[in-house]
Amino acid sequence: MPAPKKNGVQTVWFQNPPVIVATATIVGSKEGQGPLGHTFDKVVEDGYYGEKTWEKGERRMLAEVMNTAIQRANLQPQNIDYLLAGDLLNQIISANFTARDLGIPFLGLYGACSTMYEGLALAGMLIDGGFAENVLVGVSSHQSTAERQYRYPTEQGVQRPLYAQRTVTGAAAAVISRQGNGPVITHATVGRVIDLGQGDPMDMGAAMAPAAADTIARHLMDTGRQPEYYDLYITGDLGTYGRELAVKLLQQKGYDLSSRFSDCGVLIFSPEQDTHAGGSGCACSGVVTCGYLIQEIRAGRLKRMLGVGTGALLSQISCQQGETVPGIAHGVVIEGR
Amino acid sequence: MPAPKKNGVQTVWFQNPPVIVATATIVGSKEGQGPLGHTFDKVVEDGYYGEKTWEKGERRMLAEVMNTAIQRANLQPQNIDYLLAGDLLNQIISANFTARDLGIPFLGLYGACSTMYEGLALAGMLIDGGFAENVLVGVSSHQSTAERQYRYPTEQGVQRPLYAQRTVTGAAAAVISRQGNGPVITHATVGRVIDLGQGDPMDMGAAMAPAAADTIARHLMDTGRQPEYYDLYITGDLGTYGRELAVKLLQQKGYDLSSRFSDCGVLIFSPEQDTHAGGSGCACSGVVTCGYLIQEIRAGRLKRMLGVGTGALLSQISCQQGETVPGIAHGVVIEGR
Repeated sequence: MPAPKKNGVQTVWFQNPPVIVATATIVGSKEGQGPLGHTFDKVVEDGYYGEKTWEKGERRMLAEVMNTAIQRANLQPQNIDYLLAGDLLNQIISANFTARDLGIPFLGLYGACSTMYEGLALAGMLIDGGFAENVLVGVSSHQSTAERQYRYPTEQGVQRPLYAQRTVTGAAAAVISRQGNGPVITHATVGRVIDLGQGDPMDMGAAMAPAAADTIARHLMDTGRQPEYYDLYITGDLGTYGRELAVKLLQQKGYDLSSRFSDCGVLIFSPEQDTHAGGSGCACSGVVTCGYLIQEIRAGRLKRMLGVGTGALLSQISCQQGETVPGIAHGVVIEGR
Repeated sequence: MPAPKKNGVQTVWFQNPPVIVATATIVGSKEGQGPLGHTFDKVVEDGYYGEKTWEKGERRMLAEVMNTAIQRANLQPQNIDYLLAGDLLNQIISANFTARDLGIPFLGLYGACSTMYEGLALAGMLIDGGFAENVLVGVSSHQSTAERQYRYPTEQGVQRPLYAQRTVTGAAAAVISRQGNGPVITHATVGRVIDLGQGDPMDMGAAMAPAAADTIARHLMDTGRQPEYYDLYITGDLGTYGRELAVKLLQQKGYDLSSRFSDCGVLIFSPEQDTHAGGSGCACSGVVTCGYLIQEIRAGRLKRMLGVGTGALLSQISCQQGETVPGIAHGVVIEGR
């Protein structure tokens, strides 16, 4: 017998859809100059954000959005039942130290760039399951901390291929509550890890696109909904080429979503900014969802969206040991109310 | 108004306590020679486990316990709603690749050495919340993969201080179900990140003991239970000195638990094995809980325990940048039925 709130194979529905009562975003200068620059709460010109290292700067951004989101929800840290957070740094060190300073019971997540959506899905389950009144979800990433960890020393100035993406510098947080006003989370589709054998750690869009297509197709099958049900299908950070690939893979599965399929990594930078294939990183889907998309829903311009956080599950060691790059994608339905 | 299944500040209770229907364990040779050697399903003499690298060997162990646990529960991977897993390697790469091979919807966790208990707590909430019928929780760690990542190259043969612990080589998995026979999970207390300023990455017991004491005291306050309620309080990997410190910190908080307080890291190795302060790592609390402790409960020798997974939230970068080592501890009540 399937669990009572299960809908099909991978999707769950919420009896009392949890509410996204407050969000906060902060980004770096390049993101601030991009097409969505006006939708973010704050643009930080200094990559160090006044700290001694990029890592400490990233952490300061994460702490700031979390505190802002809590204030906007008219809450105190002690009113938050759980903090669900993660980032790209080894041992999710940005999230851990931020959790220390906030003192909220903490569940550390690692979903690579899909972490915001992993957090939103879990927040929905913890609240609708009766275990929490308020949950804080937060993520961060930083071009300068991620590049030197995953790829090459910054000082080396290695030229990236045109299909590579730029890690978004920034942080995003959302307070999800059992009651309140705002867009609601109605369903979540937790993804499987999919690996079609792509082995280039620079080509993350191609690595993640099959997982995104798998989760979206599964969501539509599980719910029995027609593709037209959603105004927007938006992936986390497939970038230009990954988005194209996901649209094609979905066509092969019988779903033509091309006219309503977008990607946070495509939206956040303009082609003139020369970031190559677009943005990536936990903060990419984080700031676009908690900034632009939530604002569009609140303004009534967007009614129903399926947001799909996408993550490339590589490590420096896995690449060095010749492994391919598997991907994962978690879908969350956000609707205006 | 607090959430309906909240008990006090940090504890939740389960309306229909989820059942630990099956577990599986595998350990390395040193662990096999220890006092609990006979309680593990399998002892692997070769640290590579037949693979080309230690990392691939660790992953093979993790995959094996997961498959064994699923079989013992008389299930197939497609009957499992969620896989909750994590490990110590950067980007939890052991868990990610294992999740790929199993094809179960996957939520990646990072709780350092507390990950088994983070997973058990979340599994309880997902099942009792109505979102899952069966959840698979799995963790792994490996002396040779962890040491070279966190500390020094293996070949360097750096002498460790006597208060250092040895990372347990092994993997553990548990299937938690809404129905079935076996010990049940009745409560979970998700911990806060606690940092008393300990800055030595070799002294993880001291870093984690304050978090363990905080979670245990909070659990007793939240539930209003007397210390005698539990036969056993058992922490994940505080080791010899960390256990002592936690007992003292609890005495300062008014709880004398010394006669019923043990630690998986103390139990797994004997002093003659010269591992210094005991065992650590995700697999430490993983294999002792899924092996020895569950067996004791099934045999009726142990009735009620508060298991507390403990994690030290450090990274190589955080240590190099002069940060202290915060700790976290998640408590789960397991009772015989």
